[in-house]
Amino acid sequence: MRAVMEKGPMSRANIAEAVGLTKSTVSSLVGELMARGLLSDRGQAQVTGAGRPGRLVALSDKTVVGLGLEINVDYLAACVLDLAGGVRVERFLRHENRGVPVQSVLDALGELGRSALDEAEAERLIPVGATIAAPGLIETDGGTLLMAPNLGWSETSLRTEVANRLERPHLYVTVGNEANLAALGELWQGHGREWRDFIHISGEIGVGAAIVVDGELLRSGSGLGGELGHVSIDPDGAECPCGSRGCLERVVGQEALLKRSRLDAEVGTSIGVPDGGVRLLAESAERGDQETLDALAEAGRALGLACGAAVNLLAPNTVVLGGIFAPLFDWLVNPLREELEERAFVARYSDLAIVRSELGASAAVRGAASLILRAVCADPYLVGSSGH
Amino acid sequence: MRAVMEKGPMSRANIAEAVGLTKSTVSSLVGELMARGLLSDRGQAQVTGAGRPGRLVALSDKTVVGLGLEINVDYLAACVLDLAGGVRVERFLRHENRGVPVQSVLDALGELGRSALDEAEAERLIPVGATIAAPGLIETDGGTLLMAPNLGWSETSLRTEVANRLERPHLYVTVGNEANLAALGELWQGHGREWRDFIHISGEIGVGAAIVVDGELLRSGSGLGGELGHVSIDPDGAECPCGSRGCLERVVGQEALLKRSRLDAEVGTSIGVPDGGVRLLAESAERGDQETLDALAEAGRALGLACGAAVNLLAPNTVVLGGIFAPLFDWLVNPLREELEERAFVARYSDLAIVRSELGASAAVRGAASLILRAVCADPYLVGSSGH
Repeated sequence: MRAVMEKGPMSRANIAEAVGLTKSTVSSLVGELMARGLLSDRGQAQVTGAGRPGRLVALSDKTVVGLGLEINVDYLAACVLDLAGGVRVERFLRHENRGVPVQSVLDALGELGRSALDEAEAERLIPVGATIAAPGLIETDGGTLLMAPNLGWSETSLRTEVANRLERPHLYVTVGNEANLAALGELWQGHGREWRDFIHISGEIGVGAAIVVDGELLRSGSGLGGELGHVSIDPDGAECPCGSRGCLERVVGQEALLKRSRLDAEVGTSIGVPDGGVRLLAESAERGDQETLDALAEAGRALGLACGAAVNLLAPNTVVLGGIFAPLFDWLVNPLREELEERAFVARYSDLAIVRSELGASAAVRGAASLILRAVCADPYLVGSSGH
Repeated sequence: MRAVMEKGPMSRANIAEAVGLTKSTVSSLVGELMARGLLSDRGQAQVTGAGRPGRLVALSDKTVVGLGLEINVDYLAACVLDLAGGVRVERFLRHENRGVPVQSVLDALGELGRSALDEAEAERLIPVGATIAAPGLIETDGGTLLMAPNLGWSETSLRTEVANRLERPHLYVTVGNEANLAALGELWQGHGREWRDFIHISGEIGVGAAIVVDGELLRSGSGLGGELGHVSIDPDGAECPCGSRGCLERVVGQEALLKRSRLDAEVGTSIGVPDGGVRLLAESAERGDQETLDALAEAGRALGLACGAAVNLLAPNTVVLGGIFAPLFDWLVNPLREELEERAFVARYSDLAIVRSELGASAAVRGAASLILRAVCADPYLVGSSGH
């Protein structure tokens, strides 16, 4: 399962070579996994050498799916992915999640999740689990949101609360940090495998980062890291709900950008979805609006300053701009690069690439759905043999 | 070899259990390694259960040694460690390494290294290799110093230059970053194994850091990270030789501390050694000198601000103050903790310990010597059987 997930459709002979088992053992395992509906036949392999060409084995797009859910500051999202990586359902819902009861947000998320599951089940797909992406500190047991500064939430048993609302008692439900899941989304569904050592910056209203070392998400210490948005770029700057001052996200978060561009009045309360406030910003920059261009240049420099700290410490090969920074990439990249090269002398001695995320605002919810499917590939017996 | 290095003296039966081999295979391997002088008999094990107690096997302190060398800004150091972790030679030499020809510094280091090797050889010890610790960016192949901002050095083939001067053609010579080697010193010779996830901060004239995740030194991307001293804590602050402004080490490096404490006139040119300028600072603080106390409090806050960035990103369990910060710990820790708790909300949700390095200024040169000995434990055949 893992070999085929990593490398794409392969013949049984190539799988045997990749995993170091005999061809007959592989054939027998493939047969069992096909019977469970996890692998499927993808037709004849092209002839590339001597011998009879084998048939290709691929991950099945017809049975198992994972659900990703996302709570962000002003939107909710759901995504259903099949094992072959296909997006079967994807929904973004504008929803202001600040200043409203937590229960009402969870009710709306539950409804979004149930309707995504309904739709998948109507296609005879089998959901095996759900991951909830949230913009805050998640307890390492994966169940409780400890604190989300931009939401103003603390100590919320997200796993239990959401699991109850999904009304599928056998569904495996877990919780992860939004920035970490976005990096995993890029790693598994985007270009992350080519980058290998990167910092992925997720811009929304808040800003998070995740660090990937040698193709693996870095989970250090308490597992609560990645809070690039709360790196102070101006020690005496504006107060932040996190308790510090001059935090990066007070300058580069989406609301800060809209405000500095004098576009906030046009937005109303729902700006975080992919076609929301960020589209206004991009359109205004396209038109050459000076206030927007100034705000984006300042944001690029602020990102360069905060990234400078991360690059001096971690010397990654690549900085990935994700979330709202992906569509704003062209206006951010030059001031970011200039500031970074001034701040991080480490960057002058390594080929540091600054690239645009492929998935943008979809990265977190896709990473969340993928996480479940990676678990199935690691242990196919998570799926009952009654499946299919 | 590795089992005994990690866990201390053990019986053959316990080694067999630890490594998953039969007792007879272990006995035969132990016999061979004893013949090579790498393991030795450490007497009868205490009786703890049924059966005849075995004899304890330990790493030998009588044969193989590793040499650590350190080039810092205003001192040179050498250390010879035996396999059992014993310090056989340790020398610190005040030596101003700025504004003098690189060759003259390397000549002095070569002389220091040769005299340490002579002394070890006079005790019939067998040096197998040397690691050079340097305060700058080291190319990943381990041979070239790319840039050391405080020394003003660039592109120096340290491995070749120093190896030639040691006059032992068969010695294995490698080069490492001083902050990384200091963290490895703490890990292998200090308390690092208990801390597991930590940031180790090495204060000298410059300031470096190394990140240890799950007991392993983090080497990400280009391998050039750890430059905490060049995290900007005041974006518009004083210029730094690295090309940035407001770098941490411009406030907390030893020269900055002496200057702010108005002690620099008393020091002359040689301040980096363990009994140099840092002793002046500690004595002045002990006496209650207000300028020194203010300088140290400000340094604590500056460290807290820079560590805040690192803690927000990496959420370690422990911050270790090493180098000159170890003897100054008592004056730094409270302002550091207060600033860190304000800046890094992550720290408020995890039990972050701030601790004093055990080894202080010796950590880097001990880590350098240990690195060679770890290589011998990983591959005992690096040592010729003619040894001993």
